[in-house]
Amino acid sequence: MQTKDHRVTEHPGERIDDLQRCGCRIIQNRGLFCFGMDAVLLAAFAQPGIREGMHVLDLCSGNGIIPILLDARLGGADVHYTGVEVNPVCTDMARRSALMNGQQERVWFIEEDIKQVCTGEVQTCPDTVCGEDPHSGGRQDRERLAPASFDAVTVNPPYMTGGGGITGENYDRTIARFEVLCSLDDVMAASSRALRFGGHLYMVHRPHRLSDVFASAAAYDLGIKRIRMVHSYADREANMVLIEAVKGGKPYIRAESPLIIFDSNGERTEEVRDLYG
Amino acid sequence: MQTKDHRVTEHPGERIDDLQRCGCRIIQNRGLFCFGMDAVLLAAFAQPGIREGMHVLDLCSGNGIIPILLDARLGGADVHYTGVEVNPVCTDMARRSALMNGQQERVWFIEEDIKQVCTGEVQTCPDTVCGEDPHSGGRQDRERLAPASFDAVTVNPPYMTGGGGITGENYDRTIARFEVLCSLDDVMAASSRALRFGGHLYMVHRPHRLSDVFASAAAYDLGIKRIRMVHSYADREANMVLIEAVKGGKPYIRAESPLIIFDSNGERTEEVRDLYG
Repeated sequence: MQTKDHRVTEHPGERIDDLQRCGCRIIQNRGLFCFGMDAVLLAAFAQPGIREGMHVLDLCSGNGIIPILLDARLGGADVHYTGVEVNPVCTDMARRSALMNGQQERVWFIEEDIKQVCTGEVQTCPDTVCGEDPHSGGRQDRERLAPASFDAVTVNPPYMTGGGGITGENYDRTIARFEVLCSLDDVMAASSRALRFGGHLYMVHRPHRLSDVFASAAAYDLGIKRIRMVHSYADREANMVLIEAVKGGKPYIRAESPLIIFDSNGERTEEVRDLYG
Repeated sequence: MQTKDHRVTEHPGERIDDLQRCGCRIIQNRGLFCFGMDAVLLAAFAQPGIREGMHVLDLCSGNGIIPILLDARLGGADVHYTGVEVNPVCTDMARRSALMNGQQERVWFIEEDIKQVCTGEVQTCPDTVCGEDPHSGGRQDRERLAPASFDAVTVNPPYMTGGGGITGENYDRTIARFEVLCSLDDVMAASSRALRFGGHLYMVHRPHRLSDVFASAAAYDLGIKRIRMVHSYADREANMVLIEAVKGGKPYIRAESPLIIFDSNGERTEEVRDLYG
């Protein structure tokens, strides 16, 4: 494990939160992007499929919570994570968090548009990516984004359609929540390009979009194998759904036991307490 | 309510089961078709959408359990049910059950191939349908199966693909379980032809077929609006899924609270006890 760099500090508007895993922390910015329970549940959902030597791509990476958390949960095991995020401010936060936690040898972040990911075309490397950080050099980034080079993809995409009219001060938050810069099809297409045959996609989404998720997965040769509904309470409708699909796999779905967040007393259930460590 | 005809008796190999609703009973035959929990759950799932004056079509009707149970649950309300079943022995059992329960003015059964349902073409009426029963005359049957003439469709289709090689003694059971005589696409196509714009489809299926269900619903202009996973136990994967879709509707899915059959002591949960009355 790398030495943690305690010189990394937060910028104005940021705060540093403890992830309760191996002392790992993450830089957040309420005005931009703060991770939610979605990310924690997705990391836990994906974790059993992540093994030593794997290359894992995290799309719509935001402040990098998913690879940072997976690396922490797996105790710094030899897994290579690449987070891709289009927002340069988020990418910078994610890199500083990885550096702060000593994860920089395993957890890379690349500022890139999802539509350019794993296309096989050599992109012009934007200034914000090249040269600033030894782990985000242009050539290295492009090598890391070769088609069919990943064993697993994780993604917590924007959930909502539309939102194109919302701009201005809320732009950063809008692009994280609405499909302004990337549609669900863009996410599925990038995942499909990135994954080797038999590689696994792990996604969290909203149940109301399930028809779109199924249609888009089918269109991009991702066979859904596992879904898990997440309910705040056992007697309420689901507000999240966790999805696992396999590149080139035939759809055959196991609908796992429901994941319930709060018991009838409003306390976190034992399973959720375990997830948070 | 019609007078119940107590002269109706079972044929060899049959038995008569009490449905625990308004004294209604149903003729079953273990060698052919016995209803399962699927049918009971589907009737309960559909019931809130069934209102006075509606015309309801039940496809793959088997021994007629779903319309017979819905009519019983709704206390003989003014709803018109048409059950379609390809197997003449099942159709005959279904008709005798309706007659036995005094439901013959509201619950009709037609022997027909699902691929011929609501096509708008006038079919040659097979002998087994015409003339035997005043409520199954050929002309009446064809009028009852006019396109876009139903407010709701219920269907508990064969769950499994394949099975085409299984014939002989098990043929009747095979066609109830395997997509030999009708595929999921046939079911969706017939539902779509039968429903008026805005009419509702209620289906029970296996979770492993969800990709097929979503694809087929989309192909036949049925927008999925509601799904409910059914789990034997709260900590086990789902073994059934209840699905509601709207003809011409845009998909927007509410994933309801999970329906759990047994509590941790192995007793039926309160909700399931209520369903069985």
